[in-house]
Amino acid sequence: MGRVTTRCRAQHLTAESAIARPETLAVEEPMEIRVNGRPITVTMRTPGSDIELAQGFLLTEGVITRRDDVLAVRYCRGSAGPDGANTYNVLDVTLAGDVPPPAVDITRNFYTTSSCGVCGKASIDAVRLVSRYSTADQTVEVAASTLTAMPDRLRSAQKVFSRTGGLHGAALFDPDGTMLVVREDIGRHNAVDKVIGWAFENDRIPLSRAVLLVSGRASFELTQKCAMAGAPILAAVSAPSSLAVELAVQSGITLVAFLRGDSMNVYSRPDRVTQ
Amino acid sequence: MGRVTTRCRAQHLTAESAIARPETLAVEEPMEIRVNGRPITVTMRTPGSDIELAQGFLLTEGVITRRDDVLAVRYCRGSAGPDGANTYNVLDVTLAGDVPPPAVDITRNFYTTSSCGVCGKASIDAVRLVSRYSTADQTVEVAASTLTAMPDRLRSAQKVFSRTGGLHGAALFDPDGTMLVVREDIGRHNAVDKVIGWAFENDRIPLSRAVLLVSGRASFELTQKCAMAGAPILAAVSAPSSLAVELAVQSGITLVAFLRGDSMNVYSRPDRVTQ
Repeated sequence: MGRVTTRCRAQHLTAESAIARPETLAVEEPMEIRVNGRPITVTMRTPGSDIELAQGFLLTEGVITRRDDVLAVRYCRGSAGPDGANTYNVLDVTLAGDVPPPAVDITRNFYTTSSCGVCGKASIDAVRLVSRYSTADQTVEVAASTLTAMPDRLRSAQKVFSRTGGLHGAALFDPDGTMLVVREDIGRHNAVDKVIGWAFENDRIPLSRAVLLVSGRASFELTQKCAMAGAPILAAVSAPSSLAVELAVQSGITLVAFLRGDSMNVYSRPDRVTQ
Repeated sequence: MGRVTTRCRAQHLTAESAIARPETLAVEEPMEIRVNGRPITVTMRTPGSDIELAQGFLLTEGVITRRDDVLAVRYCRGSAGPDGANTYNVLDVTLAGDVPPPAVDITRNFYTTSSCGVCGKASIDAVRLVSRYSTADQTVEVAASTLTAMPDRLRSAQKVFSRTGGLHGAALFDPDGTMLVVREDIGRHNAVDKVIGWAFENDRIPLSRAVLLVSGRASFELTQKCAMAGAPILAAVSAPSSLAVELAVQSGITLVAFLRGDSMNVYSRPDRVTQ
């Protein structure tokens, strides 16, 4: 594997000059996730931590909840590329017999319910209906100065980003600031699924004492993943969306955004951030 | 409508102080796109230019190609929110009788083909098979200095971004630097679908003489949208992915990235950029 970056030649143009030079690119490849042999979704991802990605995805979609729910995860042998070699782009997750397989259109889970129109409230209700964990009840606290130190630590650990400028990062921290895991991906939802998949594999779900940090913006989808993993604190370097804030308020998640320099905005449950 | 931004109160924390203050948020709401009454996809988007978004999406997925293919686009009345009011989050596109409706799992179109494993090459082949336009044959040229002026013009036109920090922008330019249209969205693919939908409504497809500029990174998906709309030049402010470069090379699209200050990298077909 190790297909995280690749090289190419590009023309570098400035006002005065044009030179051909080598550039490092972040790798993007499709990955198909199958459950019990049936294709569920295709995501464009950066190869690496694929098994974490698949399990994090299935956990945050409400399909699996604990390690015993998964019997095996394997790359499909049949998925050969043009040269006949395995592409390592198809993963099959075999569920335990008592775990119901997901509906075909899994990605619609949290955006719409059949009983209601498609709207933000329906999306939020769907997450609250499906999630097994009460993020609102978590009593964890984190110091503001611990939070403001996190983005620099994420960036230092994002080795690929520094070479390509092309990857999102996600990390889990303990409330005392200990960094537990960092993952990178071309898709920010994939980076989050990878760290949640890591937690799943290490029996740390629900993430009742963790801070989930993301290098970009906080969307509905990322907040939903927090709720599904039972993580009470989501911190983002950039802006939150309206629906991310609404879901955080409804789920009792502490949503921190614009976490830059020595300041931040706290949009919900500020009682968990101490000064 | 006009639901592009909303207000909330947040705690603004610094090392020394904590104050509650109003913040402006970019609105995120789900939108379901139906074709002939059948749900096709749900996308999280910023309301506004929804009809362009739906048509741009269907064009770049290969379902429609010209204005006559669409008989009508309407908000569904049935999609009532919790208060009984129309959510304006469900759009139904009625196709002309001779236009085949899309397959159910439309989003898998470009990532995998049944004859081959899931891999980058299969994804690229799928785009080349479906696209009606030969971007490789376009003879348009653009001056490097015209390109370097574009990001500032996009930012000036991104009125919402300056207030929320939360929206991606996409714009179309003529080769002489005339800005044709700008759209913003919480999802960068949606911003691109909106400008392509604008071009579709104004009979400008294929976009044989246009530069498509995006405020962020260049992914496979955005390059695919360029190929499907027949746009020969894609310019991105940030990094490209490996698969974006491969698709651009194979489709003869000029891919410009890291377009910042007075410099840029050109990854494919640099002959279209003059100095």
